[in-house]
Amino acid sequence: MAKIKEECGVFGIYDLDGENVATSIYYGLTALQHRGQEACGIAVSDTNGPIGNVKFHKDLGLVSEVLRENTIRQMDGDIGIGHVRYSTTGASVAENAQPLVLSYVKGSLALAHNGNLVNTPELKWELIQSGAVFHTTTDSEVIAFYIARERVGSKSVEEAVMKTAKKIKGAYGLVVMSPRKLIGVRDPYGLRPLCLGKRGNAYVLASESCALTSVGADFIRDIKPGEMVSISREGVKSQMIFENKKHAHCVFEYIYFARLDSTIDGVSVYDARIRGGKSLAKSYPVEADLVTGVPESGLIPAKGYSEESGIPFGLAFYKNSYIGRTFIKPTQKERESSVHLKLSVLKSVVQGKRIVLVDDSIVRGTTIANLITMLKEAGAKEVHVRISSPPFLHPCYFGTDVPSNDQLIAAKHSTEEICKMIGADSLGYMESEYLEGMAGGLPICKACFDGNYPMEIPEHTVSMEYEIHKI
Amino acid sequence: MAKIKEECGVFGIYDLDGENVATSIYYGLTALQHRGQEACGIAVSDTNGPIGNVKFHKDLGLVSEVLRENTIRQMDGDIGIGHVRYSTTGASVAENAQPLVLSYVKGSLALAHNGNLVNTPELKWELIQSGAVFHTTTDSEVIAFYIARERVGSKSVEEAVMKTAKKIKGAYGLVVMSPRKLIGVRDPYGLRPLCLGKRGNAYVLASESCALTSVGADFIRDIKPGEMVSISREGVKSQMIFENKKHAHCVFEYIYFARLDSTIDGVSVYDARIRGGKSLAKSYPVEADLVTGVPESGLIPAKGYSEESGIPFGLAFYKNSYIGRTFIKPTQKERESSVHLKLSVLKSVVQGKRIVLVDDSIVRGTTIANLITMLKEAGAKEVHVRISSPPFLHPCYFGTDVPSNDQLIAAKHSTEEICKMIGADSLGYMESEYLEGMAGGLPICKACFDGNYPMEIPEHTVSMEYEIHKI
Amino acid sequence: MAKIKEECGVFGIYDLDGENVATSIYYGLTALQHRGQEACGIAVSDTNGPIGNVKFHKDLGLVSEVLRENTIRQMDGDIGIGHVRYSTTGASVAENAQPLVLSYVKGSLALAHNGNLVNTPELKWELIQSGAVFHTTTDSEVIAFYIARERVGSKSVEEAVMKTAKKIKGAYGLVVMSPRKLIGVRDPYGLRPLCLGKRGNAYVLASESCALTSVGADFIRDIKPGEMVSISREGVKSQMIFENKKHAHCVFEYIYFARLDSTIDGVSVYDARIRGGKSLAKSYPVEADLVTGVPESGLIPAKGYSEESGIPFGLAFYKNSYIGRTFIKPTQKERESSVHLKLSVLKSVVQGKRIVLVDDSIVRGTTIANLITMLKEAGAKEVHVRISSPPFLHPCYFGTDVPSNDQLIAAKHSTEEICKMIGADSLGYMESEYLEGMAGGLPICKACFDGNYPMEIPEHTVSMEYEIHKI
Amino acid sequence: MAKIKEECGVFGIYDLDGENVATSIYYGLTALQHRGQEACGIAVSDTNGPIGNVKFHKDLGLVSEVLRENTIRQMDGDIGIGHVRYSTTGASVAENAQPLVLSYVKGSLALAHNGNLVNTPELKWELIQSGAVFHTTTDSEVIAFYIARERVGSKSVEEAVMKTAKKIKGAYGLVVMSPRKLIGVRDPYGLRPLCLGKRGNAYVLASESCALTSVGADFIRDIKPGEMVSISREGVKSQMIFENKKHAHCVFEYIYFARLDSTIDGVSVYDARIRGGKSLAKSYPVEADLVTGVPESGLIPAKGYSEESGIPFGLAFYKNSYIGRTFIKPTQKERESSVHLKLSVLKSVVQGKRIVLVDDSIVRGTTIANLITMLKEAGAKEVHVRISSPPFLHPCYFGTDVPSNDQLIAAKHSTEEICKMIGADSLGYMESEYLEGMAGGLPICKACFDGNYPMEIPEHTVSMEYEIHKI
Repeated sequence: MAKIKEECGVFGIYDLDGENVATSIYYGLTALQHRGQEACGIAVSDTNGPIGNVKFHKDLGLVSEVLRENTIRQMDGDIGIGHVRYSTTGASVAENAQPLVLSYVKGSLALAHNGNLVNTPELKWELIQSGAVFHTTTDSEVIAFYIARERVGSKSVEEAVMKTAKKIKGAYGLVVMSPRKLIGVRDPYGLRPLCLGKRGNAYVLASESCALTSVGADFIRDIKPGEMVSISREGVKSQMIFENKKHAHCVFEYIYFARLDSTIDGVSVYDARIRGGKSLAKSYPVEADLVTGVPESGLIPAKGYSEESGIPFGLAFYKNSYIGRTFIKPTQKERESSVHLKLSVLKSVVQGKRIVLVDDSIVRGTTIANLITMLKEAGAKEVHVRISSPPFLHPCYFGTDVPSNDQLIAAKHSTEEICKMIGADSLGYMESEYLEGMAGGLPICKACFDGNYPMEIPEHTVSMEYEIHKI
Repeated sequence: MAKIKEECGVFGIYDLDGENVATSIYYGLTALQHRGQEACGIAVSDTNGPIGNVKFHKDLGLVSEVLRENTIRQMDGDIGIGHVRYSTTGASVAENAQPLVLSYVKGSLALAHNGNLVNTPELKWELIQSGAVFHTTTDSEVIAFYIARERVGSKSVEEAVMKTAKKIKGAYGLVVMSPRKLIGVRDPYGLRPLCLGKRGNAYVLASESCALTSVGADFIRDIKPGEMVSISREGVKSQMIFENKKHAHCVFEYIYFARLDSTIDGVSVYDARIRGGKSLAKSYPVEADLVTGVPESGLIPAKGYSEESGIPFGLAFYKNSYIGRTFIKPTQKERESSVHLKLSVLKSVVQGKRIVLVDDSIVRGTTIANLITMLKEAGAKEVHVRISSPPFLHPCYFGTDVPSNDQLIAAKHSTEEICKMIGADSLGYMESEYLEGMAGGLPICKACFDGNYPMEIPEHTVSMEYEIHKI
Repeated sequence: MAKIKEECGVFGIYDLDGENVATSIYYGLTALQHRGQEACGIAVSDTNGPIGNVKFHKDLGLVSEVLRENTIRQMDGDIGIGHVRYSTTGASVAENAQPLVLSYVKGSLALAHNGNLVNTPELKWELIQSGAVFHTTTDSEVIAFYIARERVGSKSVEEAVMKTAKKIKGAYGLVVMSPRKLIGVRDPYGLRPLCLGKRGNAYVLASESCALTSVGADFIRDIKPGEMVSISREGVKSQMIFENKKHAHCVFEYIYFARLDSTIDGVSVYDARIRGGKSLAKSYPVEADLVTGVPESGLIPAKGYSEESGIPFGLAFYKNSYIGRTFIKPTQKERESSVHLKLSVLKSVVQGKRIVLVDDSIVRGTTIANLITMLKEAGAKEVHVRISSPPFLHPCYFGTDVPSNDQLIAAKHSTEEICKMIGADSLGYMESEYLEGMAGGLPICKACFDGNYPMEIPEHTVSMEYEIHKI
Repeated sequence: MAKIKEECGVFGIYDLDGENVATSIYYGLTALQHRGQEACGIAVSDTNGPIGNVKFHKDLGLVSEVLRENTIRQMDGDIGIGHVRYSTTGASVAENAQPLVLSYVKGSLALAHNGNLVNTPELKWELIQSGAVFHTTTDSEVIAFYIARERVGSKSVEEAVMKTAKKIKGAYGLVVMSPRKLIGVRDPYGLRPLCLGKRGNAYVLASESCALTSVGADFIRDIKPGEMVSISREGVKSQMIFENKKHAHCVFEYIYFARLDSTIDGVSVYDARIRGGKSLAKSYPVEADLVTGVPESGLIPAKGYSEESGIPFGLAFYKNSYIGRTFIKPTQKERESSVHLKLSVLKSVVQGKRIVLVDDSIVRGTTIANLITMLKEAGAKEVHVRISSPPFLHPCYFGTDVPSNDQLIAAKHSTEEICKMIGADSLGYMESEYLEGMAGGLPICKACFDGNYPMEIPEHTVSMEYEIHKI
């Protein structure tokens, strides 16, 4: 199967008071929906019931489409996990929806995974050579298989998870539900986020703090890179699997992925974006009448640019929020007459103005070019584009969807060329050296910009994947 | 059936070059979706085909849910109309979805209506006394019935529409499709909007100019109050049905209903809201550090307040756009822990600040009270609420959903009381005398604020409605 | 719209004890499903509730598909009617599903109709000339419109129904539900059946007696041709609208339409078919080893042939009952290899035998030709075909689907030619003069065989129908 | 999960000419639908495409519900398998639908299984102890896992299948699709059927010969007990895995499961049932006027009884074929009035007659009791019941749904008692010693009647199953 690089979100909760957790998972996943719109799912268990019983539901679609009231109301259980999955281009595969729910030697095992492994082919080959069978093409099934195999000779599921973590390489924020325990693990680099919260006697694990807020839980702390936490009747136990000194938090969480109101590894996403906009204003000042952003991701760096430059901040676009996954694309013929479907310009805001237009990144350049045309048609005198990240130049192996080089405009053209191609009056990308500052001084992974990967990227081995499609 | 007061949107198009119009109607309705999320529909005809053939599709749901690609692709025709309908509380009735499509003496007749009549009971009684039968409880069916009856003795469908317009009383923006003509009519007060656009050889009618933009059509002009336009192979013909001097444009279109990027009756909605915010700043100045608005409708008046007062404008809330119609509401027990689902506060923005919070209106007061609590919990020192409309005191009979008095907080409490109830540090409503200025000097209907209805409101006659429900 | 000649089934029930009737209607329609598989529906009302309240549900599909448990359980009411509609070739139109439910001067009106009018165009023209509008293209809507119009000047709904009955011409078995009354009417010729039953204090009207049995009701009597019965709190009242001497019961009910276990107008359908088979044996005796029938409709006349001739009766085909409406037809290429999908031959039964194969009728001749081939391939020595009806030669105007001449093999070929074309060793059609005897001596309509229509068939007037399609 | 004993049907096809086989599988499964109505599925592959690519679709429901035209048309491939699954009481589990499709060391593997293993717990325990994970609770997944594990050290998939067959114990008719081969295996006792056919250059495997007929394939031969056939580009290769002398064909295939028009292990099912009826007539003669059967399974033994006894055979019941899975059951209150829903009596057939009523078996006795009441109410003078199988006394472990003792009327009551309980005038069960004769002299398994199991039945070990439910 075509390997899809994914950005996902995970959520887990264990209510020691025995209250049902399904609705909380539903709210948590809704708060994490921006991390994945392709598929989602939920699995719950009752720790007071017979060992190994699990109810789950998962499918392609948004949380609000897949998880309806009558489904959620049937899901009794005081422990559970959930997952949202990114909508990438290409065919979506229902079988790959998570959580993965299996039975193994100790009962049932459920698993939700955000991230991407870089040694899946080797791991899978090893398993398959010993006679394993696979139902999906997810990294998660490989991880689950190792946990099950390691569980046989281990004293606890935690020990099995630890042994597995030492085998897998790559980026992960992982939540695991065994019959009586909720476990969270984060990769040794801290590439993918994971945090811990508490509401009454319920413990919550989530990819982002905004999901804690959504269920009324207080933020306790981020799971450390290389840390495993295990939540059981005895409360929370922590264990460092890796004492890695070299952390590398994905900087793109701050630039684009994470939600504005989340705080990740101690750094507020909102503040980071404001700082990004300010550094842009320092690097690429320009005389202008208005700073605005491409909704939604460009708005906050635009605000930062405004604060630094003193040029007023305003909203120049109306965004139609009713254009969703099933929106009927215009045919080639209809295209010209329908550029204004998703975004339209507020004429009175831009007419006669020199405008600074901020966005978080440029991939192919077509969207920004359209917006510049729209602004100019609406009467903008100048449009100066500022991008709150450096140009994409390298693929990502750690769970994001940065496309291959030939689809990246920056890999083929100079900034001057791009500026001309998109019709801007000037163009400035954030300098790579400002990224650490933007991320509040955290050690970051910015390999997609500079090619400096925090770990070895294995050359491609022969793929073990077959095209098995449910139609 | 329970009479539902509705706000809707209409769209019509006739492409004289014979191109298919269904996709354009789809885009137009998507642009008008904010005017109604309960139900929608589309009807098209081929003016080069046999007379009276119509294809239509309508159902409960959003445009993107009801009108899927395979439906739209089957709808051949160079003339067509569409409708979106407001989601009100209470049961939604699929049979009442529009356009209404009928056969009558001259072939087929399709009709889409935005607004509300005030003399429906009398009109319906007259018809029913002469033996009429009704399939729905919409005003639209009554209008259609009159058009059909008047058509018998008239020379043209236009004449029948004019005779009908003279019988019906109330607010309407109406599009009618007869086999070879597209007709638009607006009530004599201009209560509901309707405008005309052109794209190549295609003429477009729409409730708002944003729908013209969405299909690449140029705005030509607003239909005048009391005017009927008829589009046929001969082009556009206009006729004044009423030479009414007393216009009364619904001011709530500018305050809330209409889209930010629309211009209605010559007045930009964006500019009107900016003016609204400015007048608030003049009437109720306050010392503060930040002006912000309740997304989305409060943001632009907040910007106006900021411009007038000089206090910086900022975004203080994150809005989760994935919370839609099917969102599972928290149970009473879960409620406390889930106030932050739809909106969450950006802590770094509000911490330690004195805040001016602008919204377009207060109905029951519960939402704004929650937001004030959230702001204060996030560290806001003061929250001064400014409302860009006067207090609601009177019901609306012209197609909006202003609830009856006993649900309106302003009908039962003074401003001081409300201020205390919602936990604000101060509260200011827009003064009624500023409304005309906000609406650019247009003659307006502001009866929901002052009880001054532009026409006589008939006392309630015996209802002719029966509870006929499709289950 | 293309006028579809239909065979349908109707059901009505009023439980004077106030018990819910929806499930009984569901069972009744299931028993009548053989009369129509295209669409179905149900409408109920509570005679103790507010006047004019009706709940209904109808759609394309079988009873078991359209009426699910949660729908039926919501339908409270002690009075109700139901309808099943024939699946004809060509597009099915959901809007034409019945019962038709309307509001009119006296509240709500629901109507279910089996049959076909011959003067619809004139009736509709008259209405439409006075300004009427139509939502469907059914005869039923025309009938409903007349009832509503006549109701205005009448003392009772019964009077309005009677006046309407005097206007409409054709075949009908009609059930009408007004707020407090259940009415049944049968056309003056008795072309379409309708009978009355009773279960406790509940009165039942149904197209066939098998539907009475299915709900545990006792058969009381057939409604007389030209009779109207009205069921209310006062019990059953009868009135003869027409004192017609010339009855003409549709003989095809006995040959094919009606269910084996029904008794219509005093004649058992089973017995009629046995008599049909016997008369065939008398007219076309042959030396043979086995008499068998094409399942299901040919089995009973085959049994009759066997009884008369003394040749043993046997089952020679297995019928796969899982081949329904959605069955995927083989492509041209696949066709040859898939003749045995629906029916397959029981080899041990037919091998080496001379066989008499009985069927109820031949339309195009392709099916019977296939079956003969199958029998011969399975080892049958001879196949003698006997048809328990005369050759179709004339179209039907009274609610059945006899196709036009050019599709009828008998209209273009002699019996000898047909015998050769289908590969039979001999072929015998029932003699037309035996039809009355088969139908137990009843006066019958056999116009499809002899062209002798019981009433004048109007020449075709200009069609008032437009192609209005819900997509 | 609750272990469900199932009766299923399997189908496999490999077209060496490279034609698509999906439609043929669809037709084959439709022909086998009587073997399982709970769930179904299909998996195809293109042997000329990249190795290991498979498309599949499966779900709960009938073939006509699960496999729609647009699904089938997307399924390109010249090799494929299909499965139908029995509808048992209790919850149906979508994940357990077959074929099971997996990836393993040699690409993809698909598997469809009819039957039941008796050593699943031991097999599963062995796997799970070595770290295996399971996604379903089917025997099929255990079999697939063994094939995959054995494949690692084997020279071919055939070798792996053979090694697996030597481990598994129980009843099975199995079809396996590996990337380039279609394999069929039958258990060493021949408990479950499997046969081979050919159409042009396409080879077909099916549970019953009727499925061959349905796709236009000629019957070649039955797969022998203990035989494996492997179909590849080289044609068909056969290998005996077990040279078992002790065959034990399930006699209930002849009594009830198999289709009338199938021939299994050289014995025509129709002929077997006729013989069954004849032996009943010899053992339990009675003076009577009519022999009839309970549709459908009682009809043919009734015919046999008639032939032997000389008493005329007739059809006494009408069966409503529209009562399917979703039929709304009457509530307790409605029950009395709705006994005649599925079957109704043809009065003219039974009135005044002494009747022999034949059925294939009695489980709880309630159905036959109802039918006897119906016959007597319709005027039957006597009803003599004859059952074409001995009384059920022992559970089945080989893939059928014979319930446990406490639900079997014969386990608790003598024949005399049962006769009285069901209201029959006499009752006769087939003598056990006639079963071999009925099955044409084949060695049979009749353990459900005499408790003589052909293999050791292991005592129950601790269940490895957990309640994992997709909601």
